[in-house]
Amino acid sequence: MLRTHTCGELRISDVNKTVSLSGWVQVVRDKGGIIYIDLRDRYGITQLILNESTTDANVIATARTLGREFVVQATGEVVERVSKNDKIGTGDVELKVTALEILNPAKLPPFMIQDDTDGGDDIRMKYRYLDLRRNAVRQNLQLRHKMAQQTRIFMDGNDFIEVETPVLIKSTPEGARDFVVPSRMNPGEFYALPQSPQTFKQLLMVSGFDRYYQIVKCFRDEDLRADRQPEFTQIDCEMSFVEQEDILKMFEGLVRHLFKTVKNIDMPEVPRMTYADAMRLYGSDKPDTRFGMEFVELTDAVQGKGFQVFDAAELVVAINAKGCAEYTRKQIDELTEWMKRPQIGAKGLIYVRYNPDGTLKSSVDKFYSEEDLKVWAERCGAEKGDLILVLSGETAKTRKQMNELRLEMGSRLGLRNPNEFKALWVLDFPLLEYSEEENRWFAMHHPFTSPKPEDIPLLETDLGAVRANAYDMVINGTEVGGGSVRIFQRPLQQKMFEILGFSEEEAKKQFGFLMDAFEYGAPPHAGIAFGFDRLCSIFGGADSIRDFIAFPKNNSGRDMMIDSPSTIDAKQMDELKIKTVL
Amino acid sequence: MLRTHTCGELRISDVNKTVSLSGWVQVVRDKGGIIYIDLRDRYGITQLILNESTTDANVIATARTLGREFVVQATGEVVERVSKNDKIGTGDVELKVTALEILNPAKLPPFMIQDDTDGGDDIRMKYRYLDLRRNAVRQNLQLRHKMAQQTRIFMDGNDFIEVETPVLIKSTPEGARDFVVPSRMNPGEFYALPQSPQTFKQLLMVSGFDRYYQIVKCFRDEDLRADRQPEFTQIDCEMSFVEQEDILKMFEGLVRHLFKTVKNIDMPEVPRMTYADAMRLYGSDKPDTRFGMEFVELTDAVQGKGFQVFDAAELVVAINAKGCAEYTRKQIDELTEWMKRPQIGAKGLIYVRYNPDGTLKSSVDKFYSEEDLKVWAERCGAEKGDLILVLSGETAKTRKQMNELRLEMGSRLGLRNPNEFKALWVLDFPLLEYSEEENRWFAMHHPFTSPKPEDIPLLETDLGAVRANAYDMVINGTEVGGGSVRIFQRPLQQKMFEILGFSEEEAKKQFGFLMDAFEYGAPPHAGIAFGFDRLCSIFGGADSIRDFIAFPKNNSGRDMMIDSPSTIDAKQMDELKIKTVL
Repeated sequence: MLRTHTCGELRISDVNKTVSLSGWVQVVRDKGGIIYIDLRDRYGITQLILNESTTDANVIATARTLGREFVVQATGEVVERVSKNDKIGTGDVELKVTALEILNPAKLPPFMIQDDTDGGDDIRMKYRYLDLRRNAVRQNLQLRHKMAQQTRIFMDGNDFIEVETPVLIKSTPEGARDFVVPSRMNPGEFYALPQSPQTFKQLLMVSGFDRYYQIVKCFRDEDLRADRQPEFTQIDCEMSFVEQEDILKMFEGLVRHLFKTVKNIDMPEVPRMTYADAMRLYGSDKPDTRFGMEFVELTDAVQGKGFQVFDAAELVVAINAKGCAEYTRKQIDELTEWMKRPQIGAKGLIYVRYNPDGTLKSSVDKFYSEEDLKVWAERCGAEKGDLILVLSGETAKTRKQMNELRLEMGSRLGLRNPNEFKALWVLDFPLLEYSEEENRWFAMHHPFTSPKPEDIPLLETDLGAVRANAYDMVINGTEVGGGSVRIFQRPLQQKMFEILGFSEEEAKKQFGFLMDAFEYGAPPHAGIAFGFDRLCSIFGGADSIRDFIAFPKNNSGRDMMIDSPSTIDAKQMDELKIKTVL
Repeated sequence: MLRTHTCGELRISDVNKTVSLSGWVQVVRDKGGIIYIDLRDRYGITQLILNESTTDANVIATARTLGREFVVQATGEVVERVSKNDKIGTGDVELKVTALEILNPAKLPPFMIQDDTDGGDDIRMKYRYLDLRRNAVRQNLQLRHKMAQQTRIFMDGNDFIEVETPVLIKSTPEGARDFVVPSRMNPGEFYALPQSPQTFKQLLMVSGFDRYYQIVKCFRDEDLRADRQPEFTQIDCEMSFVEQEDILKMFEGLVRHLFKTVKNIDMPEVPRMTYADAMRLYGSDKPDTRFGMEFVELTDAVQGKGFQVFDAAELVVAINAKGCAEYTRKQIDELTEWMKRPQIGAKGLIYVRYNPDGTLKSSVDKFYSEEDLKVWAERCGAEKGDLILVLSGETAKTRKQMNELRLEMGSRLGLRNPNEFKALWVLDFPLLEYSEEENRWFAMHHPFTSPKPEDIPLLETDLGAVRANAYDMVINGTEVGGGSVRIFQRPLQQKMFEILGFSEEEAKKQFGFLMDAFEYGAPPHAGIAFGFDRLCSIFGGADSIRDFIAFPKNNSGRDMMIDSPSTIDAKQMDELKIKTVL
């Protein structure tokens, strides 16, 4: 071992010991007669001291050649520091160096290895191994490690068995686009990388494994929006002989366990909300419940007063921005412009100021009396000093726009503290959604999700009204996990494929093995999967998942460090019996 | 929850409780007035009892429709059994059923779900979800889970951080064949699936992670010999500021921890042997040290007596098969034929019988006197009743043949008990091996392995003589893990690529990022990887890894259950800008 201790280990009780440390030179302070070196490793920083009058001249000379990030081994005696540093664990002592070896010199890094780095995104991605040296990034990955450990402790403690499912599987057109892998041994054929181990975990239930989990890489060949990665990690779970309630209890337990053990936060029981309520009150199936500002529907109260915009609207909906009555005209105009951007697409924004003096002033005073506005204010629970913001139009679109406005106002009012955590179960999702574009029904969750038993008759009459036994866990407005009770009987599964437009043959070709399995004694089962990268970033109080992944890819799916993907040899393509067609 | 207890849980203390169980019907015994049902789940078996005179007629009727592997839920009262079964944990009680619901019927399985199944390999692979119901297979996967748990406990306890490295990486021609993944977003370019996270874990050391591990899927597109899988799992580890000795100590610790916690076996310190000794004494770099029967070189003692075969041989080598003097002529002939098979390719097999009466009888009596044979016997440590077996020829080939013979004799003599465990470190591997076929040097371990510092000068003069700081762990004659001290300085790494025939440009294109990283403060580091599937199979006392993998592929790389690989849509290929050329 090239050290007797780490750089975070020495204490006052070690004084007089002869020790060796190895690490990176954080900084050298040459004060003429005395040279101080901060030596850093994963565990901490220890100060080295060399004194011209007592230290060997060769050692001094070596010290004077050191630059930032040199890797050195230093041996010497632990001594008590004259001026202590109570900011670091080793701050009571320093190492009086008697021998110093340069294990590896270092070129000047292309950016500063410190919390506030001067490196831009691209350069940090190219030199990711240096970026990973920064405390902030390393701590994120240590957090991730702890999250994985505690997840396993919880799952193991609840009798779940970790089973590895295959990575080279079969391509299925349903769902997102697959990454595929040409098979050399089976020319013309391809494996696919799993978007999730869905069918395999269901088969494990058929096998009687009863409780399965896995922290597992999954893959999706999608156009990468900001903060999506082509490979991502899931906490993937499945249980037999359970109902929805059992899953909610169990995995609420997991999340509370993680908050307790990783962040020492006592999270209360996770509240529940139906999908319908979430859409009505927040215009989103993943509401941020760190703050209220729920939607208030005003449609019936505002129509028939001659204001054409409201009269023609399917929905008129308001939120109450507490304490914002003093917003200037300019601020409101700016907010209106923000809402009109193509990303949101609102036609306009109506406001009502509830002035501190009790008067009400709106942008639609021409149509509505102060008495009318009082009614709005009352419905919104608005008080003196508040600002009511109103949108109108087609229901789904208006809700979506209002969701954006609510989140924006939440941010502006400082109501979205990343170190406060509010979890929520969203329940009773629709089973199916209709794609106008493709002119067919799609599974909202996936084709293996069970309809609510009481809604099964609706499969014959009103597909859009069928609710699923599906659930999402949302934290701070981000979906961190989701799952469903599964179909476990062949006839219902077959019916589901039929509804999704599979021919009998297609269904058999792609999922025949699963439907066969359902005929050999499949137990009732249900499961859930958490997005592990996202969960870690939320625990880390960060918006981006990228710094919770050791070696992420950029938005073109490219690893800037190793410069991948890349071309391959003609010989490789020949062996695989493929060629590129550019 | 569709049960109050599992089928392995009920005890005499539960008598009189009303409980619900769910599980699979193992067997129904209809004794006319009384029906017994063995209900099975992952946790055990509980006997259900229904009595025509007391049980509801509908329940009786339902019970009479049950077949093997039906999934049922049974509710009733726990009662003490009249004739107890001490072979199962629940054997003191049975469940007096009052309600019985069929959760899912089952077709007759295509093979028997029991330890000695009647199912052939192919049918069991096709219906893997049923094969996994068999105790033996499920227990293997439970063992695997326990091995992973205990590995993590050990690594976490030693300050290792689990870091996930990417699965979509870059293809490099060195080493085995890569699986590749066409990139839709980067047309004409490909990712590769990792054969190991080698470069990434080295970069983590450059990043200062200090101790890294991961239980990780790796991929190799090789022609599958029996018992190889295209995807396999490694325990992958790397440490900084260490020397070879530190790695040996740490990971010997891991293996001993696993034996202790998983099998309650106290494994002694792991002995060490150089590669040179392993080849000389066992003709293999992975000797099975559960038994002796070491090679004895007789070359100098046997030459010059007129026996042309020995005189022309580079090596004459013997083993002593204890107690085999009574082998019949027929048995020896059969053994000789076995050695002459093309897989082994021996020209013949010479023997010396050390008869119980003290006389010596050989197949080469024409050339050697009994005195001569006495010398052989002495060198071999042979005693009365033993049989000496001798091979000769070119050294490497003869050792390889003798290795096969030794293992075969070990098996015949019952010296290879799968439930006895002997571990061994093999050290000082050659750095390079020469390929006559490709007319160049190859890295025996991989291009990142460091030569022994004292052998570095030989890089200029005698490449074949350079030893590496590389090590393998062998258990019972199987390599379960291997690793090396790594090169961490750019010039030496560059030199290594040069020796392996990389042009400067190729080296830079493929591994430039790593060589760059070595210039920014790379610490000395070393690591190891264990083949997790294999380690599990050895712990399970089995030869094949296949039953320690939930969903394995067959020798053509095919998943028989999901029928993968398979063709993909033309649309998918168009999007990927590839086509197949069959």
